[in-house]
Amino acid sequence: MQAMTHVGSVSQTRAVALAAKEAQPTLAVAPGALRRAGLRAAAVAVRAAREAILAANRADLERAEGLTSAQRDRLRLDEPRIEVMAAGIEAVASQPDVVGRVVDGWVLDNGLRVSRVRVPLGVVGVIYENRPNVTADAAALAIASGNAILLRGSSQALASNRAIREAFVAGLAEEGLDPALVGFVEDTSREGAIEFMQLEGVLDVLVPRGGPGLIQAVREHATVPVIIDGDGNCHVYVDRAADLDMAAAIVVNAKLQRPGVCNAAETLLVHAEVAEAFLPLVAARLVGCELRGDERTQALIEGVVPASEEDYAREFLDTILAVRVVDSLEEAIAHIRRFSSGHSEAIVTEDLRAARQFVAGVDAAAVLVNASTRFVDGGELGFGAEIGISTQKLHWRGPMGAEALTSVKLVIEGDGHVRS
Amino acid sequence: MQAMTHVGSVSQTRAVALAAKEAQPTLAVAPGALRRAGLRAAAVAVRAAREAILAANRADLERAEGLTSAQRDRLRLDEPRIEVMAAGIEAVASQPDVVGRVVDGWVLDNGLRVSRVRVPLGVVGVIYENRPNVTADAAALAIASGNAILLRGSSQALASNRAIREAFVAGLAEEGLDPALVGFVEDTSREGAIEFMQLEGVLDVLVPRGGPGLIQAVREHATVPVIIDGDGNCHVYVDRAADLDMAAAIVVNAKLQRPGVCNAAETLLVHAEVAEAFLPLVAARLVGCELRGDERTQALIEGVVPASEEDYAREFLDTILAVRVVDSLEEAIAHIRRFSSGHSEAIVTEDLRAARQFVAGVDAAAVLVNASTRFVDGGELGFGAEIGISTQKLHWRGPMGAEALTSVKLVIEGDGHVRS
Repeated sequence: MQAMTHVGSVSQTRAVALAAKEAQPTLAVAPGALRRAGLRAAAVAVRAAREAILAANRADLERAEGLTSAQRDRLRLDEPRIEVMAAGIEAVASQPDVVGRVVDGWVLDNGLRVSRVRVPLGVVGVIYENRPNVTADAAALAIASGNAILLRGSSQALASNRAIREAFVAGLAEEGLDPALVGFVEDTSREGAIEFMQLEGVLDVLVPRGGPGLIQAVREHATVPVIIDGDGNCHVYVDRAADLDMAAAIVVNAKLQRPGVCNAAETLLVHAEVAEAFLPLVAARLVGCELRGDERTQALIEGVVPASEEDYAREFLDTILAVRVVDSLEEAIAHIRRFSSGHSEAIVTEDLRAARQFVAGVDAAAVLVNASTRFVDGGELGFGAEIGISTQKLHWRGPMGAEALTSVKLVIEGDGHVRS
Repeated sequence: MQAMTHVGSVSQTRAVALAAKEAQPTLAVAPGALRRAGLRAAAVAVRAAREAILAANRADLERAEGLTSAQRDRLRLDEPRIEVMAAGIEAVASQPDVVGRVVDGWVLDNGLRVSRVRVPLGVVGVIYENRPNVTADAAALAIASGNAILLRGSSQALASNRAIREAFVAGLAEEGLDPALVGFVEDTSREGAIEFMQLEGVLDVLVPRGGPGLIQAVREHATVPVIIDGDGNCHVYVDRAADLDMAAAIVVNAKLQRPGVCNAAETLLVHAEVAEAFLPLVAARLVGCELRGDERTQALIEGVVPASEEDYAREFLDTILAVRVVDSLEEAIAHIRRFSSGHSEAIVTEDLRAARQFVAGVDAAAVLVNASTRFVDGGELGFGAEIGISTQKLHWRGPMGAEALTSVKLVIEGDGHVRS
């Protein structure tokens, strides 16, 4: 534990966590107008601090070694990206308030009045990799939903994240909101990550955003409740009743509009009855995309690489698409059930019964009919931003906006009711 | 791992888990009428098997050593208790169906139609101690919500649990439902428990019901998502604006109606302005209850044991009540914030503003106004039964009925929508 920064006898991690926990109850009962004013001030402050943020980012980039060009690009900030970040905070601030929303309510036979009301989770933790924009998005969603947040980014983005957080909390402070609500963890070591995952009694939820190594570490070491933002091995199934032009447009969009993200398609399943017409059509439009197919696919398109079992299980995050011809909708569903990571699964069909069967039979965070998997995103679905995309089934599934950071409190009102 | 029973090369635990996972998708798309018919048949079958269940229970009781009389009582079954179990299954079957319920829905500016629909979690696991009725309650709630379940009870209740499960699945089978939906884990060793907690990719949620040792083991070893059924250090706060007769009735009920359960009160907080009138009144009615109080309480009631900090932190689960006089509502809320386990907290008051402030300021699964904490129970709240009472904030808070065993799937319908 040598890498840990200490404040007195407790680590800096624990100190900021305790300060966040201490500050949160005041925010929980603050009016929504105050939370929104704080966010708008944070957006203004982030814009105003762009020089400092860019300088910190340059320092991070100079320090960074051994990054691929994609990783460098993810880490890099510029003025337009800072503007996107600030606008994102404003988008979150403009969402309807989730705190205090009554989910459900009823009156028992004995006259007790029961309601279920949305309340903040408390203290949210996020562990993330080289994407400085997560700092602003996650903090904005947490404050919007009445939560405190602890940010634990990567060592490579440390200065950038710190500068964004500084600006953000300066904005909050202008509206009288406590900077401790957005705690910044300085310790980016592996030991520090494990300490963070074990802040029992302080962290109400941990959202890890990162690769399989991080997820595995969380599964092994976390002792606080976790929402897993896992892989997206997403499928598009082209049914025999599909409009083939529509299907080709959806497949191309789902695979190529941004291949490196979790809601991009990784496998194309095609009903045998339309494979002969569809596969050459879509292959011609999948420019620059490597296809890995089963034997029937290989027979219909030139230059297809034979697909292994592993290809169907993998998230390529690249311009590679696995392809398989299936004899029925049932076979498509069975394939998806076997290989899906529970993220986003799409069917293209004009057949109502097929659509209904697919929607019911496929178990994933999102099931789409005649739409690209790329829409499974907090911003696209109208949440303003997202703190992650849950691929687990507990608590929240799919893109997580402010509502995903709330719990539900039972409020029970009586007139002196006692149990007999 | 010597204690593990093996079926071929996989353990019995893993074998039943995989069988449950295999069987669940069929149940997930089965109509609600079939699930309910299966449950009604299970209730009939449990009643019909009472001789076999009682014989198994006698064998468990004969084998059991070193149990306290309370523990023996918990383990013991008789005809009335079996009838309660069967009636509980029927109560769950008579609840409105939770599967397929549309939680939310909207249309995006681009015309995409989004809805959020309740779906089963998949495979639910429950680890529990010497209460055979949990076998029937948990299985009923799981089947009602379209889930498979894995039951892992204690070694001392093994024969009883097995007999109840046998009857239950025989009932399901009469309606064509697969007995594998209710998996029974034979391995009750500690190693077996750890294997169970680590059934990644099979268990969608684990509900541990038991003491601090079990909860700690789950926090340390579980790699699957967990809902913690934790302690209940519940408070009743008697406000200065309370109806004192009502307050006394609520305190007596909350403490003494069943002292050994998690929703019983453990600490009484009394506003200083009413302490002199209220404390002697309630003390006279708390027959057979030991009081441990602060100095002001000691000055007002005879025979009060001085309370330590630890007394305020403890769940007595006994006829002992900690008492403290506070100078304000704020002080009561601060005390609760410090010592609450997040289960159930009650205020007794006629003052609307005080009630509102308490409800907003106290962070617990259930907050009650002018009602006994004993109502925080799945049966009392109308859920038919409960698989546990969640004291965590993630996924579900408070008593968990069938709805707590569901997740929400995003269904997104377009007309060939692609993202630009």
